[in-house]
Order: sequence, then structure tokens, then C-alpha cells
Amino acid sequence: MAKDNLTAVLHGIEDLRLEQRPIPTISDDEVLIAMDSVGICGSDVHYMTHGRIGHFVLTKPMIIGHESAGVVAKVGSKVKHLTVGDRVAIEPGVPCSKCELCKQGKYNLCADMVFCATPPYDGNLTRYYKQAANFCYKIPDHVTMEEAALLEPLSVGVHACRRANVGLGSKVLILGAGPIGLVTLISAQFLGATEILITDLVQDRLDVAKELGATHTMLLNREDSAEDVAERIRQTMSEEPDRSIDCCGAESSTRQAIFATRSGGVVVIVGMGAPEVKIPLFNALAREVDIRGVFRYCNDYAGALALVASGKMNVKRLVTHHFDITETAKAFETARYGLGGAIKVMIHVQPRDTNNPVKF
Amino acid sequence: MAKDNLTAVLHGIEDLRLEQRPIPTISDDEVLIAMDSVGICGSDVHYMTHGRIGHFVLTKPMIIGHESAGVVAKVGSKVKHLTVGDRVAIEPGVPCSKCELCKQGKYNLCADMVFCATPPYDGNLTRYYKQAANFCYKIPDHVTMEEAALLEPLSVGVHACRRANVGLGSKVLILGAGPIGLVTLISAQFLGATEILITDLVQDRLDVAKELGATHTMLLNREDSAEDVAERIRQTMSEEPDRSIDCCGAESSTRQAIFATRSGGVVVIVGMGAPEVKIPLFNALAREVDIRGVFRYCNDYAGALALVASGKMNVKRLVTHHFDITETAKAFETARYGLGGAIKVMIHVQPRDTNNPVKF
Amino acid sequence: MAKDNLTAVLHGIEDLRLEQRPIPTISDDEVLIAMDSVGICGSDVHYMTHGRIGHFVLTKPMIIGHESAGVVAKVGSKVKHLTVGDRVAIEPGVPCSKCELCKQGKYNLCADMVFCATPPYDGNLTRYYKQAANFCYKIPDHVTMEEAALLEPLSVGVHACRRANVGLGSKVLILGAGPIGLVTLISAQFLGATEILITDLVQDRLDVAKELGATHTMLLNREDSAEDVAERIRQTMSEEPDRSIDCCGAESSTRQAIFATRSGGVVVIVGMGAPEVKIPLFNALAREVDIRGVFRYCNDYAGALALVASGKMNVKRLVTHHFDITETAKAFETARYGLGGAIKVMIHVQPRDTNNPVKF
Amino acid sequence: MAKDNLTAVLHGIEDLRLEQRPIPTISDDEVLIAMDSVGICGSDVHYMTHGRIGHFVLTKPMIIGHESAGVVAKVGSKVKHLTVGDRVAIEPGVPCSKCELCKQGKYNLCADMVFCATPPYDGNLTRYYKQAANFCYKIPDHVTMEEAALLEPLSVGVHACRRANVGLGSKVLILGAGPIGLVTLISAQFLGATEILITDLVQDRLDVAKELGATHTMLLNREDSAEDVAERIRQTMSEEPDRSIDCCGAESSTRQAIFATRSGGVVVIVGMGAPEVKIPLFNALAREVDIRGVFRYCNDYAGALALVASGKMNVKRLVTHHFDITETAKAFETARYGLGGAIKVMIHVQPRDTNNPVKF
Repeated sequence: MAKDNLTAVLHGIEDLRLEQRPIPTISDDEVLIAMDSVGICGSDVHYMTHGRIGHFVLTKPMIIGHESAGVVAKVGSKVKHLTVGDRVAIEPGVPCSKCELCKQGKYNLCADMVFCATPPYDGNLTRYYKQAANFCYKIPDHVTMEEAALLEPLSVGVHACRRANVGLGSKVLILGAGPIGLVTLISAQFLGATEILITDLVQDRLDVAKELGATHTMLLNREDSAEDVAERIRQTMSEEPDRSIDCCGAESSTRQAIFATRSGGVVVIVGMGAPEVKIPLFNALAREVDIRGVFRYCNDYAGALALVASGKMNVKRLVTHHFDITETAKAFETARYGLGGAIKVMIHVQPRDTNNPVKF
Repeated sequence: MAKDNLTAVLHGIEDLRLEQRPIPTISDDEVLIAMDSVGICGSDVHYMTHGRIGHFVLTKPMIIGHESAGVVAKVGSKVKHLTVGDRVAIEPGVPCSKCELCKQGKYNLCADMVFCATPPYDGNLTRYYKQAANFCYKIPDHVTMEEAALLEPLSVGVHACRRANVGLGSKVLILGAGPIGLVTLISAQFLGATEILITDLVQDRLDVAKELGATHTMLLNREDSAEDVAERIRQTMSEEPDRSIDCCGAESSTRQAIFATRSGGVVVIVGMGAPEVKIPLFNALAREVDIRGVFRYCNDYAGALALVASGKMNVKRLVTHHFDITETAKAFETARYGLGGAIKVMIHVQPRDTNNPVKF
Repeated sequence: MAKDNLTAVLHGIEDLRLEQRPIPTISDDEVLIAMDSVGICGSDVHYMTHGRIGHFVLTKPMIIGHESAGVVAKVGSKVKHLTVGDRVAIEPGVPCSKCELCKQGKYNLCADMVFCATPPYDGNLTRYYKQAANFCYKIPDHVTMEEAALLEPLSVGVHACRRANVGLGSKVLILGAGPIGLVTLISAQFLGATEILITDLVQDRLDVAKELGATHTMLLNREDSAEDVAERIRQTMSEEPDRSIDCCGAESSTRQAIFATRSGGVVVIVGMGAPEVKIPLFNALAREVDIRGVFRYCNDYAGALALVASGKMNVKRLVTHHFDITETAKAFETARYGLGGAIKVMIHVQPRDTNNPVKF
Repeated sequence: MAKDNLTAVLHGIEDLRLEQRPIPTISDDEVLIAMDSVGICGSDVHYMTHGRIGHFVLTKPMIIGHESAGVVAKVGSKVKHLTVGDRVAIEPGVPCSKCELCKQGKYNLCADMVFCATPPYDGNLTRYYKQAANFCYKIPDHVTMEEAALLEPLSVGVHACRRANVGLGSKVLILGAGPIGLVTLISAQFLGATEILITDLVQDRLDVAKELGATHTMLLNREDSAEDVAERIRQTMSEEPDRSIDCCGAESSTRQAIFATRSGGVVVIVGMGAPEVKIPLFNALAREVDIRGVFRYCNDYAGALALVASGKMNVKRLVTHHFDITETAKAFETARYGLGGAIKVMIHVQPRDTNNPVKF
């Protein structure tokens, strides 16, 4: 096996370095993965620019990256379902699997979760990464490594739609047409939603949403009142949305979601904003509009893979930029400033399409 | 049939009068009820003192009262399950039964609900009242009329517990030991909750809660910080509560509920407070603590009746005062100012125990 | 209004007559509908050939037909959401809306259901029919009357998929590729199922299923053992199906469904067979494979309409034959014997496309 | 630590021996337990008399026993929540915690479950036993070791009630008043069921059920037809049961359960009978009465413990006989033949009450 293990390590705010790291040694339940593609997430950029997210604080150098896919290079002795050469999507968190929440199937809430690129745990923008085998998902030949890497944000969209009970004939309001808004849009359609209105402050993003299947788009201004926005939404859709998914997490978008949602419906909030917000809670309570958060995902990777493998949704459209791992700095700059209409920036640890039987 | 139909009519703020009203004529699907017992609800008092609740505004005289029970005096031609002389608890709202929400079984959210003593609809603190037969529940002999009247607030407690998924071994936090907090306490125990901590600002109320089965009580001060209260709750209970039910609806109690609840748990808010509140939403979202409102009840009367009829819970303890309908003014004063440790004030349209085979 | 109300009336076994009937008078909550399209259901044929289905027995002449659509010709005084000229799909059952099951949102189980063309209630293969307005669904211009009539069987497929919790990434086994198997196939795809194996004894039916999106088809022989069939299914699919939907209702298909389904999965049985069957119940119980029936549908019409209106599914493919109401005898013969590869036979009460802005 | 590890080992049919076994060595996540009380389950007796249950076949000597409790004697290095001296109830199965079913919280269906006293895995009727720490539940001082051992069958009752959605006001039919019927009876009451009819072929068992809270008991004869029994049940209860739990698993009891259950209700089958049964499936399907199995339990131990610790239910009544481990043969004989009205026979590995602060 090669000795090269070039790795992107965040040493501190604005201090992201490429350096060699030892190739990990695997245990019986793990696989070693020759990484192929790693997408840049907003959280990666946020750690680089702020050194923290909430109470997760960077206190020592941390490998960045967690939206990823690669090829199995070594297999632990107890691993049954994977073999060397398998192309896999990597679910980046490994829970303790012993606590009550894990035993109940809510492993995303496990207090002892080891999650990629969340301090103090390393990420996987690196040539070789080890992972618990049961959080690696073998992908079929016609799915590309880039799409496999996209399963990570897509799983957030899937989880959001599941939390919102999106199903046949759902009328969905999505607030925010950034990457998470778009994966939610894709997921909602696949689950049977037939009317989806998506909002944003930027027309270009709405244009992409339209292209990806939104039935309505609505450009908002910062100064719009939440009640007015809700009224416009009701006028535009055939009826009030029964599920609203806030992919911004701003106080304003949460307020709009509450006012707009039909009685008995659900507001799901994916984006995380300020610790404290002022909301029209009474309005939601008196109409039994439930408010639910989304923390990552849980048992959603298989579904997200099925969605991509179906070939029915244009997930590739989300990838707007490609960089080699040696160009990591430039890739982060592109993602950070949204250069060139960047939605999802993909970093290739291997030359593009090396591991894709069907080219991306 | 008697001609006397003495009725308590709210003509405006602080203007509650006893007057004669015509005895209603019933349709095929209705029954006429000789009223027996009517409890006073906080909302009744609020209409008397403020003339409105939210967007429900008193614009013409309205009969007050909706926590009630009586004896069937006349039966519509299509009514099958009731007969003259049946003792019944009266569910005070009748939905349209035609809209989508009604067809889906969420009739409490019906936009065309006709609800007793909610403007513009009359209540039933009166000698004769008509009601849709399928919202009248026949009670067994050993259940008193007073307990039947209590099914109304009890159904709110039941609905709150159902919205919170209270079940076997639930660790429940209840905020507020007023009438709604107490019916929630009773319901939660009956549904299998094994640890229930209840909070209040008044020790006397907590004493009643203790008597009714709370495993822990906690006296709070207005100036306590929500984080501190949450920490005290965690220290007092064997583990974090997995269901919190806010029966105050104050910003402070909602904040306490959010901070205290276990990851993956539920905060249900029964009490309705200010239109806008500032809450630590991020804290709830990131731990997937769901926030759910309670609007009245829905398919809960039968369960509430079963609870009372089981004889296992001391529901009678809630009734602290009894008045004749001719003493309505005094009854409202008692309820309004909580005189004499008033929890639930019962107004008797018939002499006490007239219709009770087993005395109250 | 025209006086002509030509109507197909089943007088007894093999005795279906066309005759004039009075045009119905509507009540305040009803609409009068000028019928357009009526599909023939297997149950219609069964009543004609057997005079009964289970305990529903034809004891007097009954108008046949219940898969239908038409144009609103008259509107009751209390009807708000419909107006003369509206093109509507007709949900053919009207529940009492008063019983416990109705109040809980399970109106399909209402004991007092009035259901079209189920003795003793008349169907709607007639020129003028009246229906409760809230069971009529206005369709958009681009949806044809024929598709609107198809919402009836499609709602069965939707209900079956909902009972089976079909969702994102579901691996679905459908047993039987008749009309109900095909609408279930369409519904399952729309709800996010990504792998669907469908079985039948006839290759032609499987070919249609393939055309409509089945990922696998499997031709069975009557003599195949259930265990062998289950094994073949497991070999063919990427993994065991987690939801199996039996659209035959034969003992053999139910047995296959049980053996084939993954532990923790669901077997839904739509087709109704013999009163008594011998099944490997232990096998299902010990693996917690749930067994659930489907009785018509409930709150499914709106979703089925949304599916059709989305334009994503080829529902039109199901209609293989068209007849005028005057050719009813021939239409029934075609449906009865499956002549000419008949899947769904449509009877037109109006000349074809009279009410279709977009031709079928 | 003592060297004595007297152990009950089943060598073959009718060949149960007491012999010394080595004291187990624990891993980092395990605890060593000085066993205290072990109840005899019907399955233990069945292995002794038949050498197999279904496809679980005794092919080599196996330690018997799995309804158990003991005291922690040694703690693995990674175990946080237990310490030496803790009194614990032992959940006897340990799943792989890695497969899809485990990750989804359905660990009872894990294909790689290691379950006590189920071939090829050893049970724990022994002086020293090791177990994964997260399947040991610390009990409070006022709960006895015997009650802790009873959590095992009680968890089956809890799981059955949860599968049946037993809740407030449920009308429950329980078929069979053996140990599993009785724990189901106890669980159902605790979850809010208010009317419970229990059937059996033996009056003595019904008397115990009555004592434990059944509101109705019904003595059946083997020759009663299922339809007649269902009719008698309906006549006896205030209305049709909405949940039926078959704790026999005989064809006859399953048939009775189906016929008796209300439309839209649930039949849960705990007892496992013949591989093939003839049932009136159509009757269940057409009324959407769901049929669900119960395989052991899953996330139910904590709830069962909460029930016992509440002190509200008379769980002790189930224990009718006590034996020392040296009397194992006699204990099995008592359980096997139901001698002396045996319900639950408890084997004490330590002298009685050694580890009970409050005597049994």
C-alpha cells in the first residue's frame, strides 16, 4: 500500500494545511478506505472561519471533511458485507450503539457520537480513512463517487422530509434554496410531494430550484413581514402548505414557516440559527402545528442511496465545482464565497472518474 | 316539560346576568338535556373580565359555561344510542364533520367548529341545552354528574398526555399545578408514567399535586433562571424528563420545559400565553426535542370517562366549591380570585346529588 | 335540464338492463352531477355474475358502477367549494360522519357507510347522480374525466401503500398484476419505493407491469410452492422485500407474501379471497411481520388526484377499452372475459372528450 | 472470589444436570454477576422435554435459565453506569448492535442475537454469569431480586401491549391466563386499559386473573366455536374489544381473537403455536383488524422495571414456588406439571432474601 496520506488539517482559524498523516490501522469491525471524493459542507467552512460551531470548539488540529466516498482498501476480520474494491459512501458518524437512544434507533442523538470533522474528532479529507464497516454503504456501478459523497447532505434532506412526514400529495414549503434547501426539495419530490414552493433572497438560487423541480419559487426581501410572506405563500399555492421545512434557520424564516403552515401541519427546522429567537409560538400551538428539529440524520443513508440509484432525480446538478485535494485552499475559497454560482464544491482525492465505471 | 330555563348570560365585561331563555328545539340528530352540573373554567372567567380571548371577541350576549353534564330530556328521531333519562357528559364542541380535518379525525382543528361559550356560540350554564347526540357520553351509575362535568378539563389533560406520547415508564415534567396541571397529572399517571415532577409558584397547589400522586414537587420563584430550574429538575428526578407538559404557557415555563427535556423527547404546551415569545429554540432543535401544542381535545372524552369510571383516580378532589345556579355571581367570584383554595368551582343547575345514584 | 337519465340497472344475476330513472333531487350538502366516465370494476362484474359479494347480497334492482367522474350540474345551498360546471372525481362512499370510527378518521370502517353499487345502495352508471359535495374532488383542466374515474381504483393502491408504510427506498413485493396490482405499483413508485417485484400467472400482465415501472417481474405457476417462490424472490431482488402487498388474495399468494417478507416488515392484503385460509402464521409472528388488510380507502382521494395531476405516472395506460353507455352489455363482456387484453374498461356517459380540455 | 460455580446444564432431553463450570472472564463492556434468582420459563421446560423449539435445536450441553437477576461482582473497564454491589435485572439477549434492524431500534429481530438458553447459547441458572453491561438494569432497594427476575416475562407482556397500542380506555381481550396472559393483564392495566376480559380453559387460572385485576373472566370449553365465543365476549364486555392479545397461540384462540375484535382494532399473538393454522383471515382483512406477532421484547425492560418499582401492581403474586438451585430438578418438575397451582417457579442461587433490603 502507498505511504502517501496527504491530508487537509485545520490547525486554527484561517489555518488549513495539507500535510502527511499516518495511514490508520483498522480494527476487526472496520474498513480502511482509499478516499475518492469529499464535498465541502458549510460547517467545514464555518470551522475554518470561526473555529467553532456552538459548543463544538476546535482546540487542536483537526482533519476537515465529512461528505465523502471512497474505495475499500482493507477489511477487518469480522466484516462480512464489504470486500476490497467495493465503492462505498461513508456515513460520517459512529454512535456508541449501547446507550438507550442507540437501542431505540435514535442514534443521531447519541451523546457519545464520534462524528467526522466535529471537534475533537478528525474528518476524512485525506487519502486513507478508516471507518466502522456498518456505516459504509456499497454503491452500484452506475452511481458515481461524487453522488456517493452527496449522500451526506442528501440524507439531511431525507431526514427533514421524514421528520415532516412528507408523503403523497404533500404541499411543501421550503424556506431557503441553498444546498440543504435543494436536497430537501429533491427528497420531498421523491417521497410524493406534489406541490413545493421554495423561497430565497437570491433569484439565482431559485432558478436552480425551479430546474430541480420546485413547482413555485418566491423571491423574498429581508424587510418582508412574516405575515405578509405567509399570505403570499397561501395565495401562490393551491392551498396552505401542510409541511414547512425551514432550511435557513433564521428567525425570519422560522416565523414565516409558522404563519404559513396549515392547522394540524408540521414545521421542521433544519437550519440552526441564533440560540434565542422570538417566534409566534401561540399561533403554532393553538393550531397544533408541530415544531420539530433535525439533527443530522438517522437510518437515512440507505434511502438516500436508493433515491440516487433510481436515476430519477438530478442530483449531479448540485455539484458545480471540482478540485483536486492539492487545490483544497482554492476549493474552500470557492465554497466560502459562493464563487461562480457554487452550490456544492467537490474535492477529488483521486483523479476524477478513476473509480467511476460511469463517468460523472 | 317545565317552562323555567334560567340561564347565565354574559352581556359584556363584568356583566353576567341570570335570565330566562327559551327552551331549545332539537333536530333529528340532537338531544335536549336537563343540565345538572357546570364547572367554571378559566376561560369563562376570562370572557367575563376581558370580553375576549385572542381573536374570539364577545360582541353580543353569550350564555356562559361549557364544562357540563346533565340528563337527557328529549331525543331526536335519528338518535340511537341515547334515551330519555340517560345521564350524560357533554363534549362542548361540535365540528362540521365534512372538512378535510374532520375526515382525517382531527376535528378539534375544524375551522367551522361550534364550541360552547366561545363567541359567537352560546354555552350551557342553563337549565335546558341541546347538543348533537354523538357528542354526549352516557355515564355509568357510579359516576357522579360532577365528575361527568369534569371530563371536559380532564380531556384536556388526556389530550396533552396523548400529544406527549406519555406511556409506560414515562418521566414527566409538568409545569404549573393549576386545574390543567392537575388533570394532566392524573392522566399521566393513568397512562403509565412512573415519575412525575410538577412545579408551581404556590406551595398550596403543590401540596394538592402531591396528594394527587406527583412523585416530586418543586416550588419555583419568578426570578429563577430557566437553565437553573432545568438543572434542579434533572437533579431531583432519577433522570431527565422525556416528556414535559407546560400547563402555564408563560414564556418562563416554556423555556424551563425546553431546557429540562431529554434529547429526543417532547415538550407539549397546553397553556396559551403571549402571542410572541422568546425561546431557546436552537436548544430544542439540535436535540430533536419536539414542540407541540394542545388545542382542546379530540376523541378524548371516552378515554377520560373510562379513567373516571375506573375509580382508580381521585378526580373528586378537584372540586373544591359548590354553588347553585342562582349563586352564579358568587361562584364566579370564588373561581376568579381562587377564594378558599378554589381549584374547580361547580355550579349546580339541579339540587346537588339529584341525579347521582352514588352521592358525590 | 334534460329529462334523459339513462341508467344501467342490475336486476339480478346476468340481468343488467338500461332503463330510464328519475333525475335525483339534491339536499343542501349535495351536488347533482352529469356523469361522464364510469370504469368497470371487478366487483361490478361479480355482482352481475354472482348476485353477491360476501354478505352484500343483491335483493332488489341496483344501479351498477362506482368508478366515476362527471360535471357538476346543480349545487346544494350549503355547498361552498363547488360550482356548476366543475369537473369532479366522485369518491363513491359516504360515511355517517357521526360514529366513533368516523370521528377518529377511519371512515372507511363506518358501519353505516352508504357505498355506491353495494347492496342495497345504487351506483352511478347513469346520466345524473347526486353525491355529498365533500366527497367530490374538483380536478384541474389537464386531468381527463377518464383519469378522474380511475382515482377510485388508484385510491385502493394508495391506501394499500399507506397501510404498508411504503416510503423512500422501500423494496416492495406486489403479488398479482391485475388492475389493483398495477395501481399499487404506480402508487408505490410515487411514494419512493425503489425496487418493486411483481408476480403473476400471466406474462402479458407482467409485460404491462414492466412498462409501468416494475423493476422486476416474475412469472409464477400454480404449482410453485410458497417457500420456493419466496426463495426466488429473495434471489431476484437486491434484498428481501420489506413490504409485500398481496393483490390476489388467494391462499397461495398470501403464503408467498409471508414467506418472502423481511423480518419486521409488513404484509398487506388487498385482494379478498376465501373466508378461511391456511397460512404459515407462526413464520410471520416470530419475525414480527405484520399482516394488515385493506378495505377500500380513506382520505386517499386527494393524494391519488395529486399523483395523477403531477403527470409523472402513466395512469392512462390502464384504460384499454372505451364504450358508450348504450354499449354497456358489450363493455361488461369485455371486462368479464378480459377480451383484447382488457385492463380497465371505461364507459362513457357523454361522448368521449366532451368534458376534457386536454383530450384523453 | 469463590470458586464455586454450580450450574444447571441441559445435556439432552430429560437430562438436566447440576455441575461445576468455570467462572466467566469479562470483557471491557461486560459485568460479572453473582446470580440470585432465576425463574423457570415454559421454554426452559420445553427444551428439557423436547430438546428443541422450532429451528432452535439442542445439539450440545446448554446451561438453562434466562429469567434472572443478580448482584454485580465485577465491572469491565468501560462500564460507567454500574458498580460492584449493584443489584441488577438481566435482559437475557444481546444483539449485534450493528445490523440495519439494530440501528433502527428493532434489536429483538437481530439475526445475530445471542440469547440466553437458546441453542447454541448458554443460559444463566448458574452462580456466576457475565453479561453486556448495557443489558443489565440496576433496581432500587425496594424491588426484590425475584421481581427483578420477573421483569423478563413481564417485558413480554409490556411488549405485547405496546404492539397492541394498549392505552387509555382500551377494551382488551386476553386469551389465556397462564403466566404470559397474567403479565399481559398486569401491563394492560398499567397502560390505562379499563376493561379487560380474560379467557381460559381452567377456572383456577381465571381466579388468579380476577385477583390481579381482570374486569371479566370467561371459562371456555375446547369445543366452543370461535364465533360463539366471540359473541359471548361481545355480550359480556361493554363493547367489542379493540385490542385482543392471544397468549395461547392455539388455532382456536387466534380464531376467537379475530372474530371478537372490533373493526379497525388489533389482534396481537404472543403465544406461538403450530407452523400452519387455518384462520378467518378475510374477516380480519375486510375490517382492517391488524394481526401482529410478538417476538420477545425490545426496549421494554426499563418500562417493566418502572411498573414494578411503582408498587402499584401485585407482581409478586405470580411467584408461587421457591427452590434452591440444588433443588433444580424438583423445581422443573413443579413447573412442568403445574404442581400446587404453580404459576412462576423461582430458583434461588443464593439463600432467599440475601440480597433483598425489603424481603420478598
